[in-house]
Amino acid sequence: MYETLAVVGATGAVGRIVLQQLVDRDFPYKRLKLLASSRSVGQEVRVKDETVRIELLQPGAFKDVDLVIASTPDEVSAEFAPYAVEEGAVVVDESGYWRMDPKVPLIIPEVNPDAINDHQGIIASPNCSTTQMVVALAPLHHAATVKRVVVSTYQATSGAGLAGNVELEASTKAILNGQAPKSETFQHPIGFNLIPQIGSEKHEGYTSEEMKMVYETRKILGDDQIQVCPTAVRVPVTVGHSESILVETEKPLSVQQATELFRSAPGITVVDDLPNHGYPMPRDCDGKDDVFVGRIRRDISGNGNSIAFWCVSDNLRKGAATNAVQIAELLQKSVASAN
Amino acid sequence: MYETLAVVGATGAVGRIVLQQLVDRDFPYKRLKLLASSRSVGQEVRVKDETVRIELLQPGAFKDVDLVIASTPDEVSAEFAPYAVEEGAVVVDESGYWRMDPKVPLIIPEVNPDAINDHQGIIASPNCSTTQMVVALAPLHHAATVKRVVVSTYQATSGAGLAGNVELEASTKAILNGQAPKSETFQHPIGFNLIPQIGSEKHEGYTSEEMKMVYETRKILGDDQIQVCPTAVRVPVTVGHSESILVETEKPLSVQQATELFRSAPGITVVDDLPNHGYPMPRDCDGKDDVFVGRIRRDISGNGNSIAFWCVSDNLRKGAATNAVQIAELLQKSVASAN
Repeated sequence: MYETLAVVGATGAVGRIVLQQLVDRDFPYKRLKLLASSRSVGQEVRVKDETVRIELLQPGAFKDVDLVIASTPDEVSAEFAPYAVEEGAVVVDESGYWRMDPKVPLIIPEVNPDAINDHQGIIASPNCSTTQMVVALAPLHHAATVKRVVVSTYQATSGAGLAGNVELEASTKAILNGQAPKSETFQHPIGFNLIPQIGSEKHEGYTSEEMKMVYETRKILGDDQIQVCPTAVRVPVTVGHSESILVETEKPLSVQQATELFRSAPGITVVDDLPNHGYPMPRDCDGKDDVFVGRIRRDISGNGNSIAFWCVSDNLRKGAATNAVQIAELLQKSVASAN
Repeated sequence: MYETLAVVGATGAVGRIVLQQLVDRDFPYKRLKLLASSRSVGQEVRVKDETVRIELLQPGAFKDVDLVIASTPDEVSAEFAPYAVEEGAVVVDESGYWRMDPKVPLIIPEVNPDAINDHQGIIASPNCSTTQMVVALAPLHHAATVKRVVVSTYQATSGAGLAGNVELEASTKAILNGQAPKSETFQHPIGFNLIPQIGSEKHEGYTSEEMKMVYETRKILGDDQIQVCPTAVRVPVTVGHSESILVETEKPLSVQQATELFRSAPGITVVDDLPNHGYPMPRDCDGKDDVFVGRIRRDISGNGNSIAFWCVSDNLRKGAATNAVQIAELLQKSVASAN
């Protein structure tokens, strides 16, 4: 067992849920250390029966740490992860910085747990919109080989952290009160609006968020032939990313086969009863750990080898905190089996 | 010129804008008659310099009417349109009831104006989500032949009429106040939520709204070979439908060619400047008549013959009122040229 666990970025939208998940999932550790930037240092956080004071994230902070779960911006991770590893810790990182590094495994425990064996100190958790999509694609890929994915996202404001939700609420209230909404976290006012840009322009008119869905999907599924056309859109929803997905496979899959594959895959809950208004919605998935799939149907525009479906998951949980804690559990198991 | 114009359903979300459009576009008529169900009869509506009292929609009401613009539910249109035609009027109908009738032209004036010549008294205006998509597809179809469309919609609550917007506001306020939101117009609470169902189940797991986008697109573009895979989703936005569209064409189109085709097509405004956060959004398109297109890019999942783009339009205007008034203008022109 790893004895001393550090959580970096514990006061953020994802960090808070990481702490909650450690308690809820009864994650084994002897000592818990919370690290953050100078802004949060000295704050006290209640975790299970103990009150933990936040310490400064700086070189030397990991000398007594075995395992780190970190939710920080990319540039913070770029700086601290190397010295954390040098000081002897294993880092489970939720930032985007290390994901495509060939030396860093990019892990969804239900999908590619074995890739963790190659780690060299840093293990990355995928982008939120990628994680839920790949959890859903994996069983189809193993059964029928995914060739092409067309995905349009409907992404919650909490993907931009606590500030995103604060801005959605303020923007919504301003509009309801007939005032001009402000935008600081997002490029434009988000209240009662949609913003078809997440991240900055990256490649041929696609954004950084969209290209993550291309590159990370290939890396996790271990198949560089998978083609993805993503459109990432911010919607005025607090928690829960939704995705409209069309998937073309090498072998044909019937709707019944696809549904069975979803049903028997770990981490997926199927909610698919259109006549009775049953399908996944952000409101119902908020606070749940699974990836929810519904509206499973034949692609009526395709040549018989494609399926359309709708996929929702709590972006702060499976899209971030839950997946990171699951990676940490996987590490605990491999340490346990090595001992 | 048609001398007496009747507007049916003038107090609804679309009907109000029809009246406004008649004024704004200086639509020629000598006498205006407003017709509605018994609930609205006797109400007075101010149109330009005149106050018009709403009369009952019933047999006999069209004896002195030449031209009708109607925004009513399907079942109302099914009943009144035949007797309106029998009494000598031409009906421009925005309901879904007549659209797929082989004797009824389904018209977008920028796309298929000539089809109006075959009318037998009823002319249909397409479904809102279809109209904006087909306005955008038409120039690509004429240049390169559209083979397949994959579309995910982000549809505003005003698509369900004034009651839809009232429910969005009430639902949003309830959630902001920590109360349980109600749902009557929609299947589920819409505040800060998404509902991946518009209409009822119609065909192989697709909804009636989705199948309209399949059938109406083929009819308007006059090409039964066009394949469409739609996913229609209600979003917490008041006005303005958005669509993430992937289009495969027979002949390849570069991004530059597609952009030029959009720019030179009537009724389309291109807003496409991702580095400077420029793209269409519902907030900016509310109250405008055009179809707005942006995020135009190569489909990086395709074989070279497909383009992805983002399309927004005011669903009450080009999606309904504006298109109907444009059809009426087209009729006026054909009457004028015949005289």
